[in-house]
Amino acid sequence: MNFASDNSGPAAPEILEAIISANEGYQNSYGGDSLMEKIKSQLREIFEAPDAAIYLVATGTAANALSLACLCPSWSTIFCHEHSHIQEDECGAPEFFTGGSKLTTVGGKHAKIDPQQLAKAISSTGIIGVHNVQKGALSITNATELGAVYDLDEIIELTSMAKDFDLPVHMDGARFANALVKLGCSPAELSWKTGVDILSFGGTKNGLLGVEAVIIFDPSLAWEFELRRKRGGHLFSKHRFLSAQMKAYLKDDLWLQLAQKANSAAAKLSRELTNQETVKIEHPTDVNMVFPSLPREIHNLAFSKKAAYYLWPPNQSLEGNPKESLKARMVCNWSTTDEEIETFVNLVKSCQV
Amino acid sequence: MNFASDNSGPAAPEILEAIISANEGYQNSYGGDSLMEKIKSQLREIFEAPDAAIYLVATGTAANALSLACLCPSWSTIFCHEHSHIQEDECGAPEFFTGGSKLTTVGGKHAKIDPQQLAKAISSTGIIGVHNVQKGALSITNATELGAVYDLDEIIELTSMAKDFDLPVHMDGARFANALVKLGCSPAELSWKTGVDILSFGGTKNGLLGVEAVIIFDPSLAWEFELRRKRGGHLFSKHRFLSAQMKAYLKDDLWLQLAQKANSAAAKLSRELTNQETVKIEHPTDVNMVFPSLPREIHNLAFSKKAAYYLWPPNQSLEGNPKESLKARMVCNWSTTDEEIETFVNLVKSCQV
Amino acid sequence: MNFASDNSGPAAPEILEAIISANEGYQNSYGGDSLMEKIKSQLREIFEAPDAAIYLVATGTAANALSLACLCPSWSTIFCHEHSHIQEDECGAPEFFTGGSKLTTVGGKHAKIDPQQLAKAISSTGIIGVHNVQKGALSITNATELGAVYDLDEIIELTSMAKDFDLPVHMDGARFANALVKLGCSPAELSWKTGVDILSFGGTKNGLLGVEAVIIFDPSLAWEFELRRKRGGHLFSKHRFLSAQMKAYLKDDLWLQLAQKANSAAAKLSRELTNQETVKIEHPTDVNMVFPSLPREIHNLAFSKKAAYYLWPPNQSLEGNPKESLKARMVCNWSTTDEEIETFVNLVKSCQV
Amino acid sequence: MNFASDNSGPAAPEILEAIISANEGYQNSYGGDSLMEKIKSQLREIFEAPDAAIYLVATGTAANALSLACLCPSWSTIFCHEHSHIQEDECGAPEFFTGGSKLTTVGGKHAKIDPQQLAKAISSTGIIGVHNVQKGALSITNATELGAVYDLDEIIELTSMAKDFDLPVHMDGARFANALVKLGCSPAELSWKTGVDILSFGGTKNGLLGVEAVIIFDPSLAWEFELRRKRGGHLFSKHRFLSAQMKAYLKDDLWLQLAQKANSAAAKLSRELTNQETVKIEHPTDVNMVFPSLPREIHNLAFSKKAAYYLWPPNQSLEGNPKESLKARMVCNWSTTDEEIETFVNLVKSCQV
Repeated sequence: MNFASDNSGPAAPEILEAIISANEGYQNSYGGDSLMEKIKSQLREIFEAPDAAIYLVATGTAANALSLACLCPSWSTIFCHEHSHIQEDECGAPEFFTGGSKLTTVGGKHAKIDPQQLAKAISSTGIIGVHNVQKGALSITNATELGAVYDLDEIIELTSMAKDFDLPVHMDGARFANALVKLGCSPAELSWKTGVDILSFGGTKNGLLGVEAVIIFDPSLAWEFELRRKRGGHLFSKHRFLSAQMKAYLKDDLWLQLAQKANSAAAKLSRELTNQETVKIEHPTDVNMVFPSLPREIHNLAFSKKAAYYLWPPNQSLEGNPKESLKARMVCNWSTTDEEIETFVNLVKSCQV
Repeated sequence: MNFASDNSGPAAPEILEAIISANEGYQNSYGGDSLMEKIKSQLREIFEAPDAAIYLVATGTAANALSLACLCPSWSTIFCHEHSHIQEDECGAPEFFTGGSKLTTVGGKHAKIDPQQLAKAISSTGIIGVHNVQKGALSITNATELGAVYDLDEIIELTSMAKDFDLPVHMDGARFANALVKLGCSPAELSWKTGVDILSFGGTKNGLLGVEAVIIFDPSLAWEFELRRKRGGHLFSKHRFLSAQMKAYLKDDLWLQLAQKANSAAAKLSRELTNQETVKIEHPTDVNMVFPSLPREIHNLAFSKKAAYYLWPPNQSLEGNPKESLKARMVCNWSTTDEEIETFVNLVKSCQV
Repeated sequence: MNFASDNSGPAAPEILEAIISANEGYQNSYGGDSLMEKIKSQLREIFEAPDAAIYLVATGTAANALSLACLCPSWSTIFCHEHSHIQEDECGAPEFFTGGSKLTTVGGKHAKIDPQQLAKAISSTGIIGVHNVQKGALSITNATELGAVYDLDEIIELTSMAKDFDLPVHMDGARFANALVKLGCSPAELSWKTGVDILSFGGTKNGLLGVEAVIIFDPSLAWEFELRRKRGGHLFSKHRFLSAQMKAYLKDDLWLQLAQKANSAAAKLSRELTNQETVKIEHPTDVNMVFPSLPREIHNLAFSKKAAYYLWPPNQSLEGNPKESLKARMVCNWSTTDEEIETFVNLVKSCQV
Repeated sequence: MNFASDNSGPAAPEILEAIISANEGYQNSYGGDSLMEKIKSQLREIFEAPDAAIYLVATGTAANALSLACLCPSWSTIFCHEHSHIQEDECGAPEFFTGGSKLTTVGGKHAKIDPQQLAKAISSTGIIGVHNVQKGALSITNATELGAVYDLDEIIELTSMAKDFDLPVHMDGARFANALVKLGCSPAELSWKTGVDILSFGGTKNGLLGVEAVIIFDPSLAWEFELRRKRGGHLFSKHRFLSAQMKAYLKDDLWLQLAQKANSAAAKLSRELTNQETVKIEHPTDVNMVFPSLPREIHNLAFSKKAAYYLWPPNQSLEGNPKESLKARMVCNWSTTDEEIETFVNLVKSCQV
C-alpha cells in the first residue's frame, strides 16, 4: 500500500535486463558508447525531429536546470507555475545553473499556468529596461505536479505568448509519457509542434533506475549543453548504463506501456475513492496521481496500517478534529497492484460508517 | 585488448546482482532507503570515523566539486597538481560549484605535488590582503592521475603545510582502493589520520556502474553538502540503486579485491613491457595504470589491431618517424585478462626485431 | 519642475567643498585614507555601535547586494516586499552576488511588508527539507519605495519574526535619513536596537554624488564583506573621495538637514495637491515622495510644460480619456524649491476649472 | 616623496572644476545625462570607431571584469600574463563576473606576454573536448603592470594568435594614455586596429577621481554589457559626475598631457637612479613606473624619511644584510614634482659613499 511517489517503486524488469546485457566487455565512455547512437536515432524518429540534439542525464533536476541554463541568461526570469518542480522541489537548481536568474511564478488551477496570469506576468517584466531582470523563458510541466494534463490547445495558448516575445519554451516532462498516453497525441505534437524548444523527457518516474533524456529541438544549443553537463558533473563515464536503460525504455513502446499501467492504477484508485461519501478528489486524475481529501481519522488509520503517501501540501497536522478533511497526494506507478488499491479503498470504507 | 580507461570496462557481477536484489518492492527515495543506513555504518567502521557524514553521488566530478565547494569560499584558491583531474578533466566544475574560486596548480613528478612548490605557492598566496584571492584548500589525488601513489609520509608532508595555514584538505580518491592495496595501510591512515578532511571515495573506476561516496570527516559540513548536492541535481530519487552498488562494493572486501586485480594486471603489463628494449616506463606502476613510451610504429600496429588506449599527453601525432617514441597511457581494470596483456606484449615484441 | 528622482538633483555644496578639500597631496588608497578612520568613529558614535564594521561603496545596489551576500547562502531565499528595490530595480543584483538565492516577495500596503503575509511566507519556506531553498534573510526598506515609513513597532514586529527563525535582517536605508527625521528617533533605534544586522546607509539620494555606507553591526562578517566588495569591483582606489563625501555628510548633521528639506518639500507638495479636487494621494507622504493620482489631462499638460516625473507604475498610457486618473511618483530632494512646487500646483489648479 | 601608486596622488584640478560645473540643476540619472552623449561622440571620434558602444564605470576592476564577462562563457579560460592585474589584484573578480571561468597565465619579461608561451597555452587548451575548459579570450595589459609598453607589432603578434582561434581580445588599459604617449601612435592603432575588441580605457590612475570608460568595438555586446553593469551594481544613478570627469579628461587632450607629465617624471627618476652605482633598473621605464633594485639600507633610510613606495614583489624583508638589494616599485603621477624626485635621489646618493 505504497503511494508515496513514483520514485519509491521498483524499476521495470526489462530495464534491469538491459543493464545486464550492456555489461559485456568494453564500451567507450562518456557517451561514446554504441547504444547511444541508436537512442539518438530512435528518439529523433519518435519525435519526428531529425536534427534534435539528444543527451542523457540521471536526474530530473539536472535535466531541467541544465536545459534552462541553455535558454536563459543569468539576468532573466523564467516564467513558471508557483507549484512547479523547478520552483518548489529543486533547492534552487535553476538559479544555480543559470548563474542567478529569477523564477517568476504564476498561479492557475491544478498547477496549470493560467494564461491570463502568464500574459500579465510576461508583459509586466522588464518594462523599465536595464533596471529589471529581463524576460527569459517559459517552463511548462506536463503532466503537472498536481496530476493534470495540458491539452494541445492549452499548450499552444501558452507557448504563443512566449513566442510573441521571442521567449524560448522548456517543458518539464518528468511525466511526459503519462501525459502522452492520456492525450493520445504524438510525441511531436506534445513538444516541438506545439512550441517546445527543449524537453526534459522523463524516465526515472516511469520505471527506470535514473535516466532522463534532454531533447533539444534547436541543435545550435547542443555544444553549450554538453559543456554545461560536464561542468555540472552530469556526464557519466560509464554512460552505457544510462544508454541501456533508455534503449530498453523505448523498445516496443515499453515507456508508453509503463505509463499506461500507472495511469490506469490511478484512475481505478480515483474512481473507487470518488464513490466514498467522505472523499473529495481535488484535482483531475489525468495521469498517475490522485489528490483526495480525506477525514483526518482515515489518514490516521491508513498510516497506522503502514499506508505510505504524503499529506499535500505537507504542512497539515494529523492531530485535531477526526472528521476534518486533510488533502493528500497518492501516486501510482507501473507496479501498483489492484490489491494495494483495494486494501486502501477498503480501509477508507471501514471508516465511512 | 582494451586499455583505454578503467571506465570502459564492465561492472563487477556482484554489483549487478545487488542492483537486481534492490529492485524489490518499495523504498524511500532520496537517500531514505534502508540500505543507505547500513552503508553509513559500514563506512564509518571501515574508516574508524564514527561521526563522519557520508553521501553518495554518481560521478567523480560531482564528488570532487561538491566537496571543494563545502571547503572553499568563492574568493579563495585550491592548491592542486597541474595534472590533477579537477584542473584538467572536469571542464571547470570546481570553479562552477564554488562560485568562481581559482585553482593554483603546482608541479611535481608523476602528478604528485612537489612539497617545495606547494610551500611556495601557499606562502605567496594572499599576501597583499583583500586584493588577492585567499588561501582556500589543498586537494591531493591518490593514486595520482599518472598512476603513482603517495605514501603516508608524503601525504603528511603536504597536509601539514595546509594545516599550518588552517587550510582544509580534500582527497580525490577516484582510485583510493588501488592506492590502499598498494600501500597496505588502513583506510583511516590514508585519509583522516594523515590530515584529509573530505574524501571522494571512488567506486566507478573500480567496478561500479557509477557511484562515489563522499566521506566528510567533519560532520559540521554535512547539511551544506546535502543542500549543494540537491541544488546541483545530484540527489537521486531512486537512491536505492546507488546504495545497492556501494553495499555490494564493501561486502567481503570486494572493493579491495577488484583494486587488487586491476593493480596486478597493470603490474604484469608493466613488467613485461619493461623487458622490451624499445619500451620505457615513464611513471611508477603503483596502481592500475602503465605509462609506456613506445616507438610510433608499435602504436600504429597496435591501433591497427584494435588495441584501445590513449596517447598521453594527447597532442602527439601518429604520423612521423616510425622509430620515435610516443608516450601512452594504458589502464587496466578488474576484468583485464592475462590474454589481453599477452596479446599486446606479443605485438610489441613483434616490432622489436 | 523636476520631480523625477532624488537622483536627478544636484549634490549639496558642502559635499563638493569636501571633495575639493580632500584633493590635497597624497592619501593611501583603497580605504586606507585618514578620513575613513574618522568616519568609522563618527558612525559608530552616531549609531551607538562601537564594534560595527563600516564600509563605503558608491551605489545602493552594491550596498544592498553585497550585504545580502554576506547574510544569505546561495541556497536560501530573501524575504522582501514585492515592490522592494532589490526585487524590482536591481536587475537581479542580489541573485548575482549571493550566487543564486531566491527572493520571496510578500505584499503589504505602501510597500510595507504585511506582517501576516511575512509570517506565512517564512513558515512555509523550507518545510520539506533539502528539496527546498532554505530560509535566508529578511530585507526591509525604510523609508519604503512608496514613500512610507515603518515606525519602530512595525519594524520590531517584522524583525521578531525573523529572529524567531534565526534569520538575519538587512535594512535598505537608501532613504534612511528621511525616515529618521520623520520618526524623530535615534539611528540606533531605527537599526540594531530594532533588530537590523546590516544597514545600507544611503547618501546618494540625499545629496551626495554617490556614496553609501554599509554598517555591519556583527563585525564577524567584516572580512567577508571586504573580500566580496573587492571581488565585486566596488573597492575604490581613490577612496578618499568617497570618504570626503561621507565625512561632510555627517558633519553638523548635514545628512539630517538635507533629508528634512526634502521631506518638507514633499509635505508641501502633498498638502497643496490634497487640496485639489481631482487629486488623490495614494500613499502617505512620510518622506520625500508624493504619489498622486491626477487626471490624464493634467499629466499631459505638465509634461508639455517640461515637468519631470514618472507615471508609477510605469505601464500607464498618456493616451485615452482625459479625465481618467493616472498614478504618478513625484520625488523631492534637498534642493527642491517652493517655486518648483508652486509652478506645478498652479498647473494642476489651471486644469481644475 | 610619495611613489606608492598613481592612485595615491590627487585628481587634476580640471576634473574637479568639471564636477563643480556639472552640479547645476537637474540631469537624467543612470547615464541619461546630456554629458554622456557628448562623451560617446568624442570617444568614437578619438578612436575612429563610429559604432563603438561606450560606457563608464568607476573602478578598473569593474571595467575589466564586466568586459571579460561579455567575452568569455563561464566554461572558458582567459589567457593573460601571470602578473596581470586581473590575475593578481582583483580578488578573483573575473572569475566572479564570468560565473567561474579560469585564467590561464603565461610568463614573459616585464609582464609582457611571451608569444611562444601564449601559442603553447592556447594550442594546448581544450584539446580533449568537453572534458576541458574551452579557449575563451586573450587579455593584454598595456602599459603592463611592470611599466613596459607593447609596441604595435608586439600586440599584433599576440592578437593574431587569438584571432587564429576566433578568440576575442580584451585590453586592460588602466594606463592606456601612458602607453599611447610613449608610442606616439593613434588610439585606434593601439586598440581595434591591432585587434582589440574591448578596451578598459583608464582614467582613475591618470588624474580622475574614479572613472574608466569601457569601449566596446563590437556593438552587438552593448546590451549585455549594460545588463551586467547594472546587475553588478556599477550603474551610477548620479552618472553625471562620472560623465563630467570623462568629458574634462578628453577636453584639449588633458588625458594625454597628464600621462605625459607622469611619464616624464618617471623618466627623470629612472634616469637619475640609473646613474647611481648601487641601483639597477629592473624593467624598462616606458611609462610612469620605475622598478629599481636598491640596497636594503637605502630602503630603510628612505622609509625612515617618509618616502612612500612598495617593495615589489611584496614578500621581501627590510631586515637583513644592509647591502643586499631589494626590488621596489615607484610610481609617478601627473602631480609628481621634480623636488620629490630630487629628494629621493639625494637620499640614494647619500648612501652611496
